[in-house]
Amino acid sequence: MKTLGVAIVGASGYSGEELVRLLLQHPRISIECITSRTYAGQALGSVFPRFADTILHFSQPDVKQIADVADVAFLALPHGLAAEFAVPLLEAGVKVIDISADFRLRDTAQYEKYYGQPHPAPDLLKNAVYGLPERYRDRICGARLVACPGCYPTSVILPVAPLLSAHVLSPHSLAVASLSGVTGAGRKVDVAYIFPECNESVRPYAVTGHRHLPEIEQELSEAAGSPLRLNFVPHLVPVNRGIHSTIFADPQVGDITQEALTQVLHAAYDAEPFVRVLPEREVADTKHVTHTNTAEVGAVLDDHTGRVILSSAIDNLTKGASGQAVQCMNIMYGFDETLGILPNTQTVIGSSH
Amino acid sequence: MKTLGVAIVGASGYSGEELVRLLLQHPRISIECITSRTYAGQALGSVFPRFADTILHFSQPDVKQIADVADVAFLALPHGLAAEFAVPLLEAGVKVIDISADFRLRDTAQYEKYYGQPHPAPDLLKNAVYGLPERYRDRICGARLVACPGCYPTSVILPVAPLLSAHVLSPHSLAVASLSGVTGAGRKVDVAYIFPECNESVRPYAVTGHRHLPEIEQELSEAAGSPLRLNFVPHLVPVNRGIHSTIFADPQVGDITQEALTQVLHAAYDAEPFVRVLPEREVADTKHVTHTNTAEVGAVLDDHTGRVILSSAIDNLTKGASGQAVQCMNIMYGFDETLGILPNTQTVIGSSH
Amino acid sequence: MKTLGVAIVGASGYSGEELVRLLLQHPRISIECITSRTYAGQALGSVFPRFADTILHFSQPDVKQIADVADVAFLALPHGLAAEFAVPLLEAGVKVIDISADFRLRDTAQYEKYYGQPHPAPDLLKNAVYGLPERYRDRICGARLVACPGCYPTSVILPVAPLLSAHVLSPHSLAVASLSGVTGAGRKVDVAYIFPECNESVRPYAVTGHRHLPEIEQELSEAAGSPLRLNFVPHLVPVNRGIHSTIFADPQVGDITQEALTQVLHAAYDAEPFVRVLPEREVADTKHVTHTNTAEVGAVLDDHTGRVILSSAIDNLTKGASGQAVQCMNIMYGFDETLGILPNTQTVIGSSH
Amino acid sequence: MKTLGVAIVGASGYSGEELVRLLLQHPRISIECITSRTYAGQALGSVFPRFADTILHFSQPDVKQIADVADVAFLALPHGLAAEFAVPLLEAGVKVIDISADFRLRDTAQYEKYYGQPHPAPDLLKNAVYGLPERYRDRICGARLVACPGCYPTSVILPVAPLLSAHVLSPHSLAVASLSGVTGAGRKVDVAYIFPECNESVRPYAVTGHRHLPEIEQELSEAAGSPLRLNFVPHLVPVNRGIHSTIFADPQVGDITQEALTQVLHAAYDAEPFVRVLPEREVADTKHVTHTNTAEVGAVLDDHTGRVILSSAIDNLTKGASGQAVQCMNIMYGFDETLGILPNTQTVIGSSH
Repeated sequence: MKTLGVAIVGASGYSGEELVRLLLQHPRISIECITSRTYAGQALGSVFPRFADTILHFSQPDVKQIADVADVAFLALPHGLAAEFAVPLLEAGVKVIDISADFRLRDTAQYEKYYGQPHPAPDLLKNAVYGLPERYRDRICGARLVACPGCYPTSVILPVAPLLSAHVLSPHSLAVASLSGVTGAGRKVDVAYIFPECNESVRPYAVTGHRHLPEIEQELSEAAGSPLRLNFVPHLVPVNRGIHSTIFADPQVGDITQEALTQVLHAAYDAEPFVRVLPEREVADTKHVTHTNTAEVGAVLDDHTGRVILSSAIDNLTKGASGQAVQCMNIMYGFDETLGILPNTQTVIGSSH
Repeated sequence: MKTLGVAIVGASGYSGEELVRLLLQHPRISIECITSRTYAGQALGSVFPRFADTILHFSQPDVKQIADVADVAFLALPHGLAAEFAVPLLEAGVKVIDISADFRLRDTAQYEKYYGQPHPAPDLLKNAVYGLPERYRDRICGARLVACPGCYPTSVILPVAPLLSAHVLSPHSLAVASLSGVTGAGRKVDVAYIFPECNESVRPYAVTGHRHLPEIEQELSEAAGSPLRLNFVPHLVPVNRGIHSTIFADPQVGDITQEALTQVLHAAYDAEPFVRVLPEREVADTKHVTHTNTAEVGAVLDDHTGRVILSSAIDNLTKGASGQAVQCMNIMYGFDETLGILPNTQTVIGSSH
Repeated sequence: MKTLGVAIVGASGYSGEELVRLLLQHPRISIECITSRTYAGQALGSVFPRFADTILHFSQPDVKQIADVADVAFLALPHGLAAEFAVPLLEAGVKVIDISADFRLRDTAQYEKYYGQPHPAPDLLKNAVYGLPERYRDRICGARLVACPGCYPTSVILPVAPLLSAHVLSPHSLAVASLSGVTGAGRKVDVAYIFPECNESVRPYAVTGHRHLPEIEQELSEAAGSPLRLNFVPHLVPVNRGIHSTIFADPQVGDITQEALTQVLHAAYDAEPFVRVLPEREVADTKHVTHTNTAEVGAVLDDHTGRVILSSAIDNLTKGASGQAVQCMNIMYGFDETLGILPNTQTVIGSSH
Repeated sequence: MKTLGVAIVGASGYSGEELVRLLLQHPRISIECITSRTYAGQALGSVFPRFADTILHFSQPDVKQIADVADVAFLALPHGLAAEFAVPLLEAGVKVIDISADFRLRDTAQYEKYYGQPHPAPDLLKNAVYGLPERYRDRICGARLVACPGCYPTSVILPVAPLLSAHVLSPHSLAVASLSGVTGAGRKVDVAYIFPECNESVRPYAVTGHRHLPEIEQELSEAAGSPLRLNFVPHLVPVNRGIHSTIFADPQVGDITQEALTQVLHAAYDAEPFVRVLPEREVADTKHVTHTNTAEVGAVLDDHTGRVILSSAIDNLTKGASGQAVQCMNIMYGFDETLGILPNTQTVIGSSH
């Protein structure tokens, strides 16, 4: 079997580190190039000592060099910059899996509104596929440009979308409270993220107008079949990894049952390798999913108010970014979808009755 | 001035520790008795070394002994047990400030439903005053039995009640996501609370039917002037102290403005020593209030959905328990309300031109 | 290739969880049996939801049942109990890899002194091999009973032993300060380990006479060629995983150089897959090794005092327990030593010049 | 009584915040001026919302303005810059309590070696008093320039100095392993201090040649009566506040006893309001001292090796910086030494028979 050549453009952040971790254990690919403007020339191990045994070195990001060695490039870059690389890489025949926000929004006006600049490559948007396999597997299959979802959107869309599609939830009633670990901010050096400011602190931020809001609304509108708006309040909590989302919603019709709710989720996800529908009395806990590509989702019908409470947990760096990106790559290249991201012997383990 | 004799019944938990910390710096009282069944006979410093310099020792809880030395008793006991002490203490002429849940709910049916047992002292309920000074200062004044609010209810009632009273919010639209530090569970020894289970974990619990729910509903119904129900989802986050609440609500009328929202909060709290209304662009952060008796509250009108997002932060052990209890004591005995819980020179500090 | 049948006896603690995690991704074995007295009958996923996709269930520990399905049994049990299972399992022809302390000390008097009871199976000691591959690979190869080192001993022996064997360090000068994450205490439910007692706390414990002391002394005496004693002060720090050890030592001779120190470590470990000798200006950081089986070791000669400062970092659950146990199994069965514990494609990754 | 006018120069870091916290509750002083280049013109509460109720505003640091309003100035500035302010402030008649490193070392060559620049005000050194009240109370009394000790030195000198002075410990045998919370690095914005880099990490740094080393050696040489050198290895651990030091030492003479060790510490500290000698079986824990000005110190004689193990815990921002500075101010102005830093009613609390 041919080994796939992979480039990681912008490999010195936390998403880049997680991509390296996952791709190093992927049996069908070879990391041919990792780039970093800051660390060009340095060994990967000098930035991330846990990879000291590899021979990988950061290079300056150079489209031609990348195209020479890579079949596919993961872009772990800031928005705006990602598009700058995506355009020539695609032209050079390299498939692109973008972890930035540049190709997630189909409406350039929304991009401009939330990111404060005109879209850098609007022509590419029609070819970009939103990289959420549980929703768009068929399109990811043949995609040359995949826009991986944001971490918060992944944690919100997975529990909510099937219930909207099934017309179980009222599309105009959604309110989301999400909690994120600090790696969600990337490896950003800012006083707000130094340890003493985050430790022993719990706080919301961007209470209105967070950049992930239009992305959530786009996908949930799609699921609902009509435009919707919602409230999304992210909070920063002192953990490294993990996002938990609690979502409040009104039922669409009055006679919804707990069984029906759970049944919709099971129907959507029982065949999915990376979504676990919670048993009825259990809650999503980020501890269950850190360092894995799994999303936990669950729904509770509150008899007291008649409202529905959804919850989900993911690892923001794995299912919320790099793991999902690798999952997309597996789909694009016809690999087993779990390759490199799920213990491969898991299916053959014995029973222990 | 006569020194007030104080007893702390059940002083070996975190609320008890916080009561000791606060009362040791209170100039008008003397801690005459601290009790603990587990640690009776031991020095306070052997359980909490930070108090090693005091001469306080735990004794077995004994109503007669308490009545001999104390004018007022703080009960930091489990529910059920608190009532067992409150009854004879009150009969013996000792005023009672109860931090447990026993006298918070006016409806014994609610108590029985949520606490799983008949109310242990229903006759006392008519005399019990809910110890939230910002709502019930006038009644606390002359109370002989004060039922201090739960930590979550304090964090929810403070931002919401004035807006309900002002008919600004729709009473049937409330959804609350609260985040609590682990001391909120008390000093409970259970596998769910050991460090490796809480650290690097974010999780909701008691998604429906939490014991603080009827208390929140009771007080907000009172504020709204009619019965209401709401959703309350508490989450456990890995900090020691602090509760943050984010509350979603629909406006009662369509033409509410941001200014009006903020104005209602200012009107309610500008004269309060322990509630700070947030400036419009700032968010409540538990870091701002830990180790203080201050509550931060704020309201944001989201133009995008038209919904209102409230937020608040308190220290669960201080404003959420022991600090509020001391505040109530100050009111009951005519002391300056901030005595022992606010730096007493704060009002005389100079300016800094 | 025949698949090896594996049992994990005592699989509901943190070492057991880590064993499951590692063995699930091991291509040559099958987990045939996991036992737990507390959780017998329950699904593995009900205790550790991250394994909810497996079909494993806890069973009561039963020697006959284990012997029916397993070639090798990992014992993740308390000391004393481990020996009770080791004896009949070995008699039944099952090889035993013991993570407890029962077979680490060759001197039963030491066992009795530090563990407070007579050794439960002294006859087995002569056959037990200390499971530190870097020191005893040849004996592990043919062993039927492997006693995996304690977590602290692994972190101390690895940096110190080669320097003692090379007569570079004075054997009577050693002082060790080790820092451990809270999983080092196992999944123990005790007030000392609840979150609020560990978080925002740093403290030593067992300042003299820790149970890992005789084990460290045994192995370092062996390395030095003569009996030695040392000081070992463990500290508890608020992280989940990781042990860091800082070791002070006097040089054996006056003219030792930094180069010579580093050279001894390189000679000992350059061929080892799981020990990384630190570059001269870098320090061991538990963050570099968590969730891996790698040990970082380094030595610094302090020109100011002439003393040597060694440091090391491991993940207490991996190289300090379960990862090392799997490494031993790989050696015992002639598998690639890194199977299941190192990304298997790491050797074929490309360069990125 | 006249109120003392106080300035805090450099009040926007963590030491400055702690100074404000302490001085706001000090009954004999008035904060007349707080300065910050970065935040000049802004309210204190805009940087530290917990002080939002004060009317303090940051101003540009200006010697003349400070001298106009302040009797004493606390300098919470970087080294080098502190001296630049100390010189003209002293000339203007303002007493100076410096929290920086500028006046701690009596030997300018040491300053130049460890701080990489010539001493900025060598003439002032002869008048500077090392602000450790337990060692230099008599000189602090009449001082016009106090150099507050570093946080690590405070934690090391307190347990070690009396034992060296009593010739109980061998002065050439000392090895120190200290663990510090992240506020010890100040409010420094650097990738090394962002939350994800510190959380779940334990690591030493500056293993040789840390800037606090010459300060520790200076004071311990003074205590021993002859020059000594030692090893000092600081570690960063993921807590906000607190320093723990473990110190290994050989006894000076062979027949030292545990009782004699403890007796020396009791003799040194029983009259001290801010040093607690640990009971023999207890260990120093930063949790016992955070948010207080207390140092815990203890000594253990290890019968096994004959070596002595000392330990101590302080809050790095209080006894390790700002609390100690206030303690010095109290001494300088003849206030009760505990004013503002110890609950003032602690001495009158009742007993609990």
